[in-house]
Amino acid sequence: TQQYRITLLPGDGIGPEILTVTVEVLKVIGKQFDITFEFQKGLIGGAAIDETSEPLPSETLELCRNSDAVLLAAIGGYKWDNLPRLQRPETGLLGLRAGLNLFANLRPATILPQLIDASSLKKEVVEGVDIMVVRELTGGVYFGQPKGIFTTETGEKRGVNTMAYTETEIDRIAHVAFEAARKRRGKLCSVDKANVLDVSQLWRDRVITISETYPDIELSHMYVDNAAMQLVRNPKQFDTIVTGNLFGDILSDAAAMLTGSIGMLPSASLGSTGPGVFEPVHGSAPDIAGQDKANPLAQVLSAAMMLRYGLNEAAAADKIEQSVLAVLDQGYRTGDIMSHSMKLVGCQEMGDVLLKVL
Amino acid sequence: TQQYRITLLPGDGIGPEILTVTVEVLKVIGKQFDITFEFQKGLIGGAAIDETSEPLPSETLELCRNSDAVLLAAIGGYKWDNLPRLQRPETGLLGLRAGLNLFANLRPATILPQLIDASSLKKEVVEGVDIMVVRELTGGVYFGQPKGIFTTETGEKRGVNTMAYTETEIDRIAHVAFEAARKRRGKLCSVDKANVLDVSQLWRDRVITISETYPDIELSHMYVDNAAMQLVRNPKQFDTIVTGNLFGDILSDAAAMLTGSIGMLPSASLGSTGPGVFEPVHGSAPDIAGQDKANPLAQVLSAAMMLRYGLNEAAAADKIEQSVLAVLDQGYRTGDIMSHSMKLVGCQEMGDVLLKVL
Ligand SMILES: CC(C)[C@H](C(=O)O)[C@@H](O)C(=O)O
Ligand SMILES: CC(C)[C@H](C(=O)O)[C@@H](O)C(=O)O
Repeated sequence: TQQYRITLLPGDGIGPEILTVTVEVLKVIGKQFDITFEFQKGLIGGAAIDETSEPLPSETLELCRNSDAVLLAAIGGYKWDNLPRLQRPETGLLGLRAGLNLFANLRPATILPQLIDASSLKKEVVEGVDIMVVRELTGGVYFGQPKGIFTTETGEKRGVNTMAYTETEIDRIAHVAFEAARKRRGKLCSVDKANVLDVSQLWRDRVITISETYPDIELSHMYVDNAAMQLVRNPKQFDTIVTGNLFGDILSDAAAMLTGSIGMLPSASLGSTGPGVFEPVHGSAPDIAGQDKANPLAQVLSAAMMLRYGLNEAAAADKIEQSVLAVLDQGYRTGDIMSHSMKLVGCQEMGDVLLKVL
Repeated sequence: TQQYRITLLPGDGIGPEILTVTVEVLKVIGKQFDITFEFQKGLIGGAAIDETSEPLPSETLELCRNSDAVLLAAIGGYKWDNLPRLQRPETGLLGLRAGLNLFANLRPATILPQLIDASSLKKEVVEGVDIMVVRELTGGVYFGQPKGIFTTETGEKRGVNTMAYTETEIDRIAHVAFEAARKRRGKLCSVDKANVLDVSQLWRDRVITISETYPDIELSHMYVDNAAMQLVRNPKQFDTIVTGNLFGDILSDAAAMLTGSIGMLPSASLGSTGPGVFEPVHGSAPDIAGQDKANPLAQVLSAAMMLRYGLNEAAAADKIEQSVLAVLDQGYRTGDIMSHSMKLVGCQEMGDVLLKVL
């Protein structure tokens, strides 16, 4: 019997509800696949600020380090929006990424046939879309130094961030992306702004160099403005996309929204060693928190990604993913993905029907 | 009789064809509104590289400075894609923006009822979309210092760009945006990444300060990743958007693509004094260059923007815009916007029917 220690970070808003459902799913899956999960809980985001006045207490980081994987729900809410940046929920998330060295963020954007009508795009445009965005997560303008708000010689303020990548940083994310493309349809599109930015020029040069090790992968390059256009115009042209932290933030959200159902999308953040963090793409939805209305499926699918990418338990991951599709086939929908003649259920009930299918 | 000196920059690819049509339109409009245009031609982009080995010869910048407005067509092409960045067409464009101090870029994204089927989004999602993106154009990560590819202490390369804004830079673009919103539906959404970036924090603070002068404008703030999502999900929520150079590059292209017909979209780049530059949003389309297939209407509408924003000739601008709609109503379409049972025309013929309507 395999044994894994999982750190649960419920965070804010709908986080606790959707994580509760997910833990139940994991327990059942564990029995079926002879896996024992040992769960431990940590504070992050607004919940951590309220209790400790820090968005990422050092105990939380320690808990995470001493586990095999981290399941994160969602952070943030109006309540903490006006605190200084260092004390905000987002800063806790950035600290977690940096602290665990999670440089690779995998964000699938897949259109499920059952939910195709939820998309704001025409059916023929999005049918069959299956994109994996590989986003660099611990570098670029998010972390570059120098940064801050300085006073110029003329006495006015100047806000500064530094968009920077070293060769090492580019190489390691490129390897992750080429490997991901190899497990998919063998196409990788690297997105940059090499016609304007020096950092993108280095990015492109290194991606080309690394590509020599992957002759089986078809590599292309696209400027970020064009990529934003092409995602809207014809998303089916994309298989795997690799890009820097900021461009990945923007493009993975645009790609996610093509599906029309971001309540369904999981993500994985991985380092070279140590535990990964698995979390839904959607936010903490404070307006529906505690009302049993949230869609738990992105969190459940994040647990599947944890099994697949974090714990190497692909069979268990498959089982979860198939069960989610089965539940949709049976017509169960939470409010965010509800449509005509389907069965509206709450967060907990969605969990229950999923357990039945499992 | 009013007299204006206009610098024409045909550039590359389809640039010369679409500009030729536009000049004919301006000549007719001139007669009707008692305006005399004096045209002078300059080299830019690949065309300039081929003749002078520089993408923006100093004579071109001088010509522009000595004119009332600049009509630019399009630059770039495969031919010049592998030159070092300083000798590339794009660098000429950036030099023109910096050289004329064109800090404000206005990019409308309007759905024309005649072309609504061209959108990849559902009709009910895009019907009536009318967005103006006000993009800062001479600052941010495009121009921030330091930049370059440096060698670190450990001997590896590090690509660096600096994303920076001063208060002065933010204030002046904010004023342009609030004024633009006032002439529209009175709503302004400022897009930043203030939850992560110091430069965005200063941006947001200044936009809030400037907003006190515009109590009639409804100001909101949105993170750039969410803005990319919301443009796809429900673009009708936007009226005027103001944002920095890089975010504006990405979002204005995404917004343009919502219309499905970027062959129709003009843009204006303005400074506080001196001539503005007016150009289509689309590129130089080298694959159809010289084949009389290009859509000249974005260039024609750029001339209308020139009349409206650059020369204060709103009546003449109105006339051009109405004529373009009339030509579409009559069913004339170039290949890029062609649809069932419409009349396919080439670049020159589209110009001819437009002249007839005028
Ligand atoms: C909350 C924020 C700091 C974060 C980011 O920008 O990375 C979020 O948008 C995301 O994409 O995970
Ligand atoms: C060609 C390029 C330098 C330019 C930019 O990035 O500004 C273009 O994409 C644009 O938006 O006008």
